[in-house]
Amino acid sequence: MGDGSPSTVFISNNILDLDMKSARIVKLKESLEVQEIEAPKPKGAQVLIKVHSAGVCHSDIHLWEGGYEGPHGLFLKTTDRGVKYPLTPGHEIAGTIDTLGEQAEGFSKNDKVLVYPWIGEGLCPACRIGEENLCDKPRSIGIYVDGGYSEYVLVPSYKYLVKIDEGMDIDAAATLSCSALTAYGAVKNANLKPDDNVVVVGAGGLGLMAIQLAKAVTGARIIAMDIDDKKLEVAKDEGAETTVNSKKEDPVKAIMELTDKLGADAVIDFVNASKTVEADMQFLRRRAKVVLVGLFGGELKLSLISMPTRAYRLSGSYTGTLSDLIELVSLAKRRVIKPLVSNRFKLNQATEALTMLKEGKIAGRGVINP
Amino acid sequence: MGDGSPSTVFISNNILDLDMKSARIVKLKESLEVQEIEAPKPKGAQVLIKVHSAGVCHSDIHLWEGGYEGPHGLFLKTTDRGVKYPLTPGHEIAGTIDTLGEQAEGFSKNDKVLVYPWIGEGLCPACRIGEENLCDKPRSIGIYVDGGYSEYVLVPSYKYLVKIDEGMDIDAAATLSCSALTAYGAVKNANLKPDDNVVVVGAGGLGLMAIQLAKAVTGARIIAMDIDDKKLEVAKDEGAETTVNSKKEDPVKAIMELTDKLGADAVIDFVNASKTVEADMQFLRRRAKVVLVGLFGGELKLSLISMPTRAYRLSGSYTGTLSDLIELVSLAKRRVIKPLVSNRFKLNQATEALTMLKEGKIAGRGVINP
Amino acid sequence: MGDGSPSTVFISNNILDLDMKSARIVKLKESLEVQEIEAPKPKGAQVLIKVHSAGVCHSDIHLWEGGYEGPHGLFLKTTDRGVKYPLTPGHEIAGTIDTLGEQAEGFSKNDKVLVYPWIGEGLCPACRIGEENLCDKPRSIGIYVDGGYSEYVLVPSYKYLVKIDEGMDIDAAATLSCSALTAYGAVKNANLKPDDNVVVVGAGGLGLMAIQLAKAVTGARIIAMDIDDKKLEVAKDEGAETTVNSKKEDPVKAIMELTDKLGADAVIDFVNASKTVEADMQFLRRRAKVVLVGLFGGELKLSLISMPTRAYRLSGSYTGTLSDLIELVSLAKRRVIKPLVSNRFKLNQATEALTMLKEGKIAGRGVINP
Amino acid sequence: MGDGSPSTVFISNNILDLDMKSARIVKLKESLEVQEIEAPKPKGAQVLIKVHSAGVCHSDIHLWEGGYEGPHGLFLKTTDRGVKYPLTPGHEIAGTIDTLGEQAEGFSKNDKVLVYPWIGEGLCPACRIGEENLCDKPRSIGIYVDGGYSEYVLVPSYKYLVKIDEGMDIDAAATLSCSALTAYGAVKNANLKPDDNVVVVGAGGLGLMAIQLAKAVTGARIIAMDIDDKKLEVAKDEGAETTVNSKKEDPVKAIMELTDKLGADAVIDFVNASKTVEADMQFLRRRAKVVLVGLFGGELKLSLISMPTRAYRLSGSYTGTLSDLIELVSLAKRRVIKPLVSNRFKLNQATEALTMLKEGKIAGRGVINP
Repeated sequence: MGDGSPSTVFISNNILDLDMKSARIVKLKESLEVQEIEAPKPKGAQVLIKVHSAGVCHSDIHLWEGGYEGPHGLFLKTTDRGVKYPLTPGHEIAGTIDTLGEQAEGFSKNDKVLVYPWIGEGLCPACRIGEENLCDKPRSIGIYVDGGYSEYVLVPSYKYLVKIDEGMDIDAAATLSCSALTAYGAVKNANLKPDDNVVVVGAGGLGLMAIQLAKAVTGARIIAMDIDDKKLEVAKDEGAETTVNSKKEDPVKAIMELTDKLGADAVIDFVNASKTVEADMQFLRRRAKVVLVGLFGGELKLSLISMPTRAYRLSGSYTGTLSDLIELVSLAKRRVIKPLVSNRFKLNQATEALTMLKEGKIAGRGVINP
Repeated sequence: MGDGSPSTVFISNNILDLDMKSARIVKLKESLEVQEIEAPKPKGAQVLIKVHSAGVCHSDIHLWEGGYEGPHGLFLKTTDRGVKYPLTPGHEIAGTIDTLGEQAEGFSKNDKVLVYPWIGEGLCPACRIGEENLCDKPRSIGIYVDGGYSEYVLVPSYKYLVKIDEGMDIDAAATLSCSALTAYGAVKNANLKPDDNVVVVGAGGLGLMAIQLAKAVTGARIIAMDIDDKKLEVAKDEGAETTVNSKKEDPVKAIMELTDKLGADAVIDFVNASKTVEADMQFLRRRAKVVLVGLFGGELKLSLISMPTRAYRLSGSYTGTLSDLIELVSLAKRRVIKPLVSNRFKLNQATEALTMLKEGKIAGRGVINP
Repeated sequence: MGDGSPSTVFISNNILDLDMKSARIVKLKESLEVQEIEAPKPKGAQVLIKVHSAGVCHSDIHLWEGGYEGPHGLFLKTTDRGVKYPLTPGHEIAGTIDTLGEQAEGFSKNDKVLVYPWIGEGLCPACRIGEENLCDKPRSIGIYVDGGYSEYVLVPSYKYLVKIDEGMDIDAAATLSCSALTAYGAVKNANLKPDDNVVVVGAGGLGLMAIQLAKAVTGARIIAMDIDDKKLEVAKDEGAETTVNSKKEDPVKAIMELTDKLGADAVIDFVNASKTVEADMQFLRRRAKVVLVGLFGGELKLSLISMPTRAYRLSGSYTGTLSDLIELVSLAKRRVIKPLVSNRFKLNQATEALTMLKEGKIAGRGVINP
Repeated sequence: MGDGSPSTVFISNNILDLDMKSARIVKLKESLEVQEIEAPKPKGAQVLIKVHSAGVCHSDIHLWEGGYEGPHGLFLKTTDRGVKYPLTPGHEIAGTIDTLGEQAEGFSKNDKVLVYPWIGEGLCPACRIGEENLCDKPRSIGIYVDGGYSEYVLVPSYKYLVKIDEGMDIDAAATLSCSALTAYGAVKNANLKPDDNVVVVGAGGLGLMAIQLAKAVTGARIIAMDIDDKKLEVAKDEGAETTVNSKKEDPVKAIMELTDKLGADAVIDFVNASKTVEADMQFLRRRAKVVLVGLFGGELKLSLISMPTRAYRLSGSYTGTLSDLIELVSLAKRRVIKPLVSNRFKLNQATEALTMLKEGKIAGRGVINP
């Protein structure tokens, strides 16, 4: 166990309709256990999906570690937010239809599908308008219920499935449902127009996808900011018009120069740490929109009087809607955007995948193929 | 001079087309001087207005004192923002047309008009869409150029004038262009729907007008919050469904109870001080909109991680557009809203008016009649 | 049977969990039959509702007659749109929870609820954003599946239920889900602002509710148009600022005069017949919005060149969203709007109710109490 | 004169500050006269522009012919719309600053600028929000006042000027202010999302630019429709995913097949003739948006009942806003869109330019260089 590979425990051995292996978080920070458990039987509108690809996401590390750093040095526990262990993580899921509940429809066995995981209770104002990702009482797959680090996953309704084309890379498709979706939600929140100067802070996976998307659907002038020149090179290839290495040059001075002293019309901050947002607030044009996405945490000392006098708008952005996901699938299918998968893992390599991600050893996006 | 009444200085005595008296800030914090100066002659699209009513606004006190408290205990100087003295304050102006520039049109001598004072340079993105109040380089009347504490005021274009009905109270009309306009801009920024719980923080003149407006055009459920029971009584009369005295009870607990533990969908904070906004942030529903309006100032320690996870939106709101003002005039004309004037002053009482306002001795809105 | 009262037929006599009486359309244009059939058993997320009130709507007459007059004198058959007989009509339904499917939640037995009937398949772009009323493949209750002219009705998911307060009149609440909802959807489509002149054509039940709603949430100036002075009197009481009897005076001339020769900014036409819309098109201001709601039918000869040069927008409006319905319930609960029920019927009076409605003998809204 | 070249008449020969040559419509349908007249002197905020490029637009032909065919075979006279002759046409104007009025600012002599010609009176609701192109009382340059077929043109305010980069082709820039602007306004009106199927009807200059723009800023799937295979080839190069030759195949059948029998989500019709719009209405998906742009004219027999039941939205689109134009300049400067000029003329070739355009002999856009 100490070798970092997940342990395999057989917890049920009786005659079942269907058994499945799942890589589960049983004890925080310890290796995930590959358990063989009974696959759930879909009832009503539910659908059982045979998982082909499950993306490995930074928030899976938070689940694994049981929380993350909040403001004032507080550690925010996942269990305080309603997460229960043991848990099978994995919210970026693509696969094929295995079994349809008796009220499920619109899909057939073996259809290739992507799963929308940001599911809500269905009764709050956000759910009523299709923004289940912002539900008062979320039930996201791989966070509040068992997810895709598993041979099978249960989806509560056929309505959360999106058909994907035979021609599409299924691993790449999986990454649309969180990585690309979060980038897209953020780009939409920034409400960009051509001639806007938008600064994308953080040219990691999400930032790069945001640059692709901003280029594809807004016409805005994109400035990428990061502390890594290699990432900034990629950012330029993806559509950034210019770049700023905030380690090598003063970000505030740089942006003011790039914008004729006007300041940025919008910032999308995929880091969202005290340091980055403090800088953001210094290079804003009047009326600027600041979209905060990253989960790094920390505090911002916000000057209250600057809010009305400068007419700023700060908004948090959290994943995206099912409707957004369908738009992404359409864009990816037509090669307008190009999600990339850099590493592939087997189910019993789940711990390794999370460790590599934590250590910054995954350049693009890692995917588990159970 | 030490008696608090403005001094009168005759600075021009030659034969002019038109002389006018103006109450001007010559030295910061000292009595305003009533100067007799030459009235400007309107050229091009400019219009000279004979002032009937000039509202007395809290921001006139900032101009008089030369600035206001910013974050970190800093005093923000008006001169650093481009204000130049001597200055005739007064941005809430109603009167009649005196002289039209040769390119001015659509109005005739003696027409009763309201002046839209939040004028921009005309070339920035905000100006292009009629949001001159958010211009990069504002030229607001009574702030950057001489205003309405005067017998006459020059308006740079006939386009900034709004006709008012013979039947309307001209003093009350004047207060629409800042007091009511700021309240209206804030209500619009909150984007309220019926069934939303909105908390209006601060039941002074602006807060009460916001309650009238939210009732008139949104259908939302309004909760008024203040520390003064008398104001809260008025708030109820104006349309608040319920009220919270945040001095007598814990505002967070109170709002959570009033909203079935869900939290507020929106807050409009007309105080915008550290203390009020800190409380605001504790009683928000996921997806809540916080509209910051007041100029009290101070800092907020904002938890950055709460922004994406809770999907909050904080926005500053600054006055309103010319289009908003026309809507207000229509609402007031039809008695859907009822702006109120509580105190009337003569031009040589300008210092007295500002002093009374500063000392909290003006219950509603004071107006100078030059 | 020839006496106009519905016939009662016992079609099942075996031992069942639950039998229920339903007034059904078995043969077009003949009396509805009160059949005693087995109540459906809710599975999955489904819920069985014990019906207290079922509103009687004009579109029920279309179902009864098997279609309606389309353009070119064509009769549009309901069966061509996918309606199947025998059918239990009734889409305005309020009642109490009887039985919850095993995946239904958020409600308890005997909860008083309103049913949202405009249900979609769940997979089209409209459904994804909560606009199921505009689904590509609608499954509306009382139209495509059995509805509320019955002791019980099956609702496909708990998500389509809206709790109603103990204090609310349950008959009046029922009428919110089509009559008021259609009026509300239309008002929202008109996108009214204060100072807009909006003409509401047709001061029947929907038009009057639209006037109430436009007054409550828009601040626009409302002009009611009808051919019946009594209805116009009521329209004034409900919030119309002025009225036009288009039988007694030329509607075009009247509107041009009432709008200072500018024309109307918006029209909401609850008749939507050739004659009314032809008149509408003559009294529009440039940029006007025309919202077409009624199902009267006929053709409009539309001048194509007037569309770009005058920048008109014509839009059809069909019922409303679940989110809209929740807003209506909130407005009704707080008495901001006041839905009215004029006639009450028993289940075996269904034919009588439809006949009276068809003959114009129901002034407000009729409701069946099974 | 019968040779087609404009006549030159010297109408003033006295000592003037500045004389200029203008190609003017003096008699309808006859050759334009090149008159030498006194250049206007800019007052107030006015600016005199030395014209470098003036685009030749189809609507100039309407001005030349005195009107166009309306519905019911009526000829709609330009004089009935307020046009007065003699008139110097030309509304697509780029050039350099010659003289600034005493209140004009933000620009210097010789600055390269593009003129926004769709100017309004400034007092209507459209003007107030920066939509002067939709003004109640338009004063468009080259239509209601003298335009750019001239050595100099007077612009009523510096606010209508947009700086253009030294690097930009000034002839191509000129075409942004009507041809590209109308395309852009139409694309914005269609409110496209990725995954929408949009049909662009008419692959002429405007249609092709709309395709470029829809590709650049919406991510929608574009279907180009025309009767000319060569134009459809170009449409594919510009970004159309697929094309339909409506002369060779049934457009309704073709679109239904290309959209999996769903129908188009949006249509932008740059022809806007009875025949094209009748076809459009047959291949619409429920909720479809139809944007009518062309000035071909004729009538549509619109089935009124289809409007609410199918929830269609028809809107006319007329040019675009100043804000839109600035966005276009930014897109063109960065080569996101590529406006093309195919023919260049001298001032005394104005009649030839209009004749060639009328006869379909100008493939892209013609520009006059006075």
